Amino acid sequence: MAAGLPEDLATPALVIRLDRVRANVAELRRRAGGPERLRPHLKTSKIPEVWALLLEAGLRACKCATTREAAVLLELAGRRSERVDLLVAFAHRGANLARLAALAAAHPGQRLAVLAEEPEQAAAAAAAGLGVFLDLDPGDHRSGVPLADRQRARAVAAAAGPALAGCHFYEGGIRDADPERRRRRAWEGYARLLSTVDELGLGGLEIVTSGTPTFDAALAFPGFAGRRHRVSPGTVILHDLASGELGVAGFQPAATVLSTVISVPTAGRATLDAGAKALDAACGVPNCAVVGRPELEPLAPSEEHLPLRVLAGPPLRHGERLELVPRHVCPTVNLHDRAFLVADGAGRLVPVAARGHEVGPDPLPAR
Amino acid sequence: MAAGLPEDLATPALVIRLDRVRANVAELRRRAGGPERLRPHLKTSKIPEVWALLLEAGLRACKCATTREAAVLLELAGRRSERVDLLVAFAHRGANLARLAALAAAHPGQRLAVLAEEPEQAAAAAAAGLGVFLDLDPGDHRSGVPLADRQRARAVAAAAGPALAGCHFYEGGIRDADPERRRRRAWEGYARLLSTVDELGLGGLEIVTSGTPTFDAALAFPGFAGRRHRVSPGTVILHDLASGELGVAGFQPAATVLSTVISVPTAGRATLDAGAKALDAACGVPNCAVVGRPELEPLAPSEEHLPLRVLAGPPLRHGERLELVPRHVCPTVNLHDRAFLVADGAGRLVPVAARGHEVGPDPLPAR
Repeated sequence: MAAGLPEDLATPALVIRLDRVRANVAELRRRAGGPERLRPHLKTSKIPEVWALLLEAGLRACKCATTREAAVLLELAGRRSERVDLLVAFAHRGANLARLAALAAAHPGQRLAVLAEEPEQAAAAAAAGLGVFLDLDPGDHRSGVPLADRQRARAVAAAAGPALAGCHFYEGGIRDADPERRRRRAWEGYARLLSTVDELGLGGLEIVTSGTPTFDAALAFPGFAGRRHRVSPGTVILHDLASGELGVAGFQPAATVLSTVISVPTAGRATLDAGAKALDAACGVPNCAVVGRPELEPLAPSEEHLPLRVLAGPPLRHGERLELVPRHVCPTVNLHDRAFLVADGAGRLVPVAARGHEVGPDPLPAR
Repeated sequence: MAAGLPEDLATPALVIRLDRVRANVAELRRRAGGPERLRPHLKTSKIPEVWALLLEAGLRACKCATTREAAVLLELAGRRSERVDLLVAFAHRGANLARLAALAAAHPGQRLAVLAEEPEQAAAAAAAGLGVFLDLDPGDHRSGVPLADRQRARAVAAAAGPALAGCHFYEGGIRDADPERRRRRAWEGYARLLSTVDELGLGGLEIVTSGTPTFDAALAFPGFAGRRHRVSPGTVILHDLASGELGVAGFQPAATVLSTVISVPTAGRATLDAGAKALDAACGVPNCAVVGRPELEPLAPSEEHLPLRVLAGPPLRHGERLELVPRHVCPTVNLHDRAFLVADGAGRLVPVAARGHEVGPDPLPAR
């Protein structure tokens, strides 16, 4: 079940198969009709070698959340002498905004922008040489100016001045299991969005919407045709069980966690060494599936243990290795310092360079 | 609300107050009647500067789960020229067991032991120079030999031979909110445990039980009096909301996450930059409390966002900083590469050196 993975790999270990990443990127490009409407979120993959496949597929625009993700992407682009256009889709302030300003100064050939939802921070970001995207609240009140608050939106745009580069509208709260219902809700939001940005006179700027659950709906929305519109899915690059549950088809799971059977208390039970510190557990139970072994049912994990129920077949053997597909891949990748990359039948360990958060004043040394 | 913390600290940032750690260690020592009955779990704190306070309080026996925790503790002890007695409370195998063997060889003056629940691995651990603790299943089938399976228990003890150092019985599944009910259930288990180990002729060896929810009950159990018994709580060193909910009193929250208000979509809402990648979210909602601000109700986090409901008072201000006490501190600490340690009114950044997992063959370079 862990074919081709070396026995001297300690577990739990994050495994990334680059051929599947490449296939997922190609499928994403195909659905978007090319790279122009794509601004994939880098939060999921966090590994420069994975991001390089996005660049190789012709994608130059992307999105991230943390200053570390921004720092790692800019370093990668610099090393490859490539121009990128990075939206840090977060309204960073204070020490975090100062860090982004330092990154912009250190990478003058790159486009680096940040979200804003109030005038003071928009002005500070613009003064620091950053582009500004006006963040608009789709209605779940996670972030952004409410669409109805035209006065605040105008003040932010004015404060950003010529640095104003676009509008950001993240409808990630739409997670209905039925794709048709998701599409309907998303389209209603897009219609409100467009009437707002047109009324504000911002309709000619770039508009960024949509993570994995609704990017297909956004690409199909007639109102975005002919506009500078981009979608920003992240999870599809590695895919996971939760995306499959939402009916997001055509992508393959590219990330697994290699684990070892460390306990067989009884014939119907076994425990793996991949607990909540190796595989996200906030997504509910089961938080993963065992590759090729549907008869093994993952139960609630504790910090370093994942118990399984053996529904059929013989007991598991102590020391046996199994691969697990996470239900939610983004926080799973974030738990790992290193990943075992498999490409062309060979493997190597690389840092998950963009995991975690920078904590100033000095940035964390490279791993 | 974030008094004394420097403005140039980027957020989210893990903050550890060493005076509170010291008070928690002193309280733990007091309840145990001295250091002899303590083998605290290192998984919670993961920071050598915090572990040093355990050593300074005279504790020499401790427990951990991962090879990285073991490596970091042995390095700390070596640097301080102190002898420690470390139980890696996990039945590591294969590459992981080889790593523990290498650690034992590199630190010949230290005691290093591992769990075993089947003969082959017990023999391998003993041959590698490791001590062996027989793992016994308290009945939740997470790990260990079932108490009734005397044959397997005897085989493991025989395979370990002179390396057999003790028995491990982790009743962490007992988490009833009522402390008296927890005590009753724990005592029932201890009685079964003692009759088993006595029947196996292992009653003179060290017996390790109990995390934070039941360590008080274990210390009070009459059957353990006069035995070589130790408890292994971990969470109490830093304390958290979940331990408070279990009625574990007398300890102070020593770990918080410093965060920044990055969004105020409406007057009754605000969003902090401390999402599920900065504060454990597997523990349910709310996953934290805002220090000194009971009128702010944390809602369900997403990866980088923590929305709050403002139940009373004026709206929060953009850029305002708030400290959060995690509901479950162990996985929260594990999310952070560095911590801001506060001691004697001054602060400094240190690595959370024991976070995450080693992935062989070569160990991760030091951070």
